Amino acid sequence: MNPIRPSIPASRYGARLDAVREEARAAGVDGLLIGVGADMRYLTGYPAMPLERLTMLVIPTVGDRALVAPRLEVAPARLCPPAASGDLPVVTWEESDDAHALVAGMLTESVGEGRPELRIAVSDDLPARHLLRLQGRLPDARFELGSPILGALRVVKDADEIVLLTEAAHAADRVVAQIAAGRLVGRTESDVAREVRERLIAEGHEAAHFAIVGSGSNSASPHHEASERVIQAGEPIVLDIGGSIDGYGSDITRTLWVTGGHPSNGPDERFRHLFGVLYGAQAAATRAVRAGITAEAIDSAARGPIEAEGYGEAFFHRTGHGIGLDGHEDPYIIAGNETPLRAGMAFSIEPGIYLVGEYGARIEDIVVCGPDGPVTLNEAPRELYVVDG
Amino acid sequence: MNPIRPSIPASRYGARLDAVREEARAAGVDGLLIGVGADMRYLTGYPAMPLERLTMLVIPTVGDRALVAPRLEVAPARLCPPAASGDLPVVTWEESDDAHALVAGMLTESVGEGRPELRIAVSDDLPARHLLRLQGRLPDARFELGSPILGALRVVKDADEIVLLTEAAHAADRVVAQIAAGRLVGRTESDVAREVRERLIAEGHEAAHFAIVGSGSNSASPHHEASERVIQAGEPIVLDIGGSIDGYGSDITRTLWVTGGHPSNGPDERFRHLFGVLYGAQAAATRAVRAGITAEAIDSAARGPIEAEGYGEAFFHRTGHGIGLDGHEDPYIIAGNETPLRAGMAFSIEPGIYLVGEYGARIEDIVVCGPDGPVTLNEAPRELYVVDG
Repeated sequence: MNPIRPSIPASRYGARLDAVREEARAAGVDGLLIGVGADMRYLTGYPAMPLERLTMLVIPTVGDRALVAPRLEVAPARLCPPAASGDLPVVTWEESDDAHALVAGMLTESVGEGRPELRIAVSDDLPARHLLRLQGRLPDARFELGSPILGALRVVKDADEIVLLTEAAHAADRVVAQIAAGRLVGRTESDVAREVRERLIAEGHEAAHFAIVGSGSNSASPHHEASERVIQAGEPIVLDIGGSIDGYGSDITRTLWVTGGHPSNGPDERFRHLFGVLYGAQAAATRAVRAGITAEAIDSAARGPIEAEGYGEAFFHRTGHGIGLDGHEDPYIIAGNETPLRAGMAFSIEPGIYLVGEYGARIEDIVVCGPDGPVTLNEAPRELYVVDG
Repeated sequence: MNPIRPSIPASRYGARLDAVREEARAAGVDGLLIGVGADMRYLTGYPAMPLERLTMLVIPTVGDRALVAPRLEVAPARLCPPAASGDLPVVTWEESDDAHALVAGMLTESVGEGRPELRIAVSDDLPARHLLRLQGRLPDARFELGSPILGALRVVKDADEIVLLTEAAHAADRVVAQIAAGRLVGRTESDVAREVRERLIAEGHEAAHFAIVGSGSNSASPHHEASERVIQAGEPIVLDIGGSIDGYGSDITRTLWVTGGHPSNGPDERFRHLFGVLYGAQAAATRAVRAGITAEAIDSAARGPIEAEGYGEAFFHRTGHGIGLDGHEDPYIIAGNETPLRAGMAFSIEPGIYLVGEYGARIEDIVVCGPDGPVTLNEAPRELYVVDG
């Protein structure tokens, strides 16, 4: 996290702040209250820590915006590009102040006392500790989620954002290659997960967010993390890892099969078939990406080949999720999501086939919808990694 | 994160679940809704990822508790100790279900339809994306923060929790020693912060949560993170780092002075004096810790010596914060907090002196209130580290 030299040009934040106010106005909202998190980082470049003291971006649709920060954090707050350029005043509160009343007052003052019922949109990740207190200070206001407003901007990535997503993807690719080349048999999943986290950071991530290491039957549990189970020769490992660079996430899944150096411990025929079906499905969904096609059509493109081979019940999650400053964000690649893809949308394509209690596999890339079709950011081979381990 | 072999004995979770229901009942609350986070981990041992799908512990004060989880995450959810032992049923929802309506229905069903106004306490970190939807499904309910109920339990650590805090503290101690012994001059703060994060994980943390590296004038900004500033010989560095082991946090601050190998670049007289005052203040506050004394008295014990030397204005934050499954939690060591310390409370003692624009220093340990006085978990020397760098 580096508040001094962000990779997004400083001038972009002022434009985003203006644009989000326009979106809010068009939605009929009186003000946006943005807590610490991806929305704040998107709008200001400020990667504040999610601590208990209130830090809040206040954007009335009429009147002046401001960044409210505790005195303790005023120095880093003032370094974010729009604050540094004078585009966003920083309002400080002291340890003995009621920060929530301060914010409530700023909104009502901007909008005018006469309004019967303020409509206030908040960042989706604003914690209850702040939201309930703000509701208490503004008992007549109507609170709603900010994602319909913020999402309209954040869902399409600009070129600088795609550069960061690409950097993160390549860093994660390198970690996959390192783990696949190293020792695995006889180690616990947790131990491998720790190595993954170290390597994610060594390869340039500012933080390692997750390291799923699902071996043997754990490979059939999509959100299994990592346990004390010892990896054995002759079984698969689903490796699903990610971190972030300047806030932008990586997220890659590859499936390994460890032989322990004995070719006779290679994947059985059933697993090879299952993996082949999965590989084809992931490729088909990727090929289907183009501007104008719906998110759910990409989900269908992955699901079709899997269902055709009788594995439909074994693929029981959506095909993907958007990625950016949040690890999971719009667009979700799921049945029922009729959103048409637009150039600049970035998302995972990650079908899986899970034979619960036995084994499973998943392949995941981050794909950007380009003007002429898909652009896959990950470059690590996506075949089954049959390795000694 | 290891849902299979937690270090807290499995039997403890059932007791905590029973105890929190008693606390809720005594507070007159009808139900607790606990989202993903430290409260859920405390009550169930389940270290769920904070994803957008609803995972929620539902505890009506009358009727049966349950853990609500998306189907995708049912396998890890069922591995948490109270679920594995049959003490906590896991209720699953499918991708097409309305999970918030499901939770609302479970509460109203338990409590009975006749109630005019349900009182519902939620975990303090429950995000707006869930809270606003739950409010929408329960328009007549009154929502309040869960911390008065949960905090009553979590604020006093048991012996197993203190073991984990101690493990984490010692792991962070080792990282301080490694960084102080390595090269610093000529490197950017960000580069050193990346090394800190790698080392936190290498020393046994499951995650590296923060790595403040404040060099030169940045040492005078308490919540400065790490920038592209290049560290120079002849200046201080405030190093404030932490991660977690099985959810329990480490948090240590030490102040270094890098000479670049030239003794003439050592700390000036003013800094030595400032640091000496700080050292005495930190020690005095630690010595004052004992059961029965108020949190604010510890704050005063740190502040007194600093004010006496004329640095009162330069110490502009509270003296400390509780630590456990949250990095910052009760008890806060701050003026106005009249909570008497109890044996088993764990918190930081971290006074600082900041000459804004010039330089500053901070010393932080994690201290447990023992039955006979303070127990300092960190063992790294807390003197000024005058190093070549």
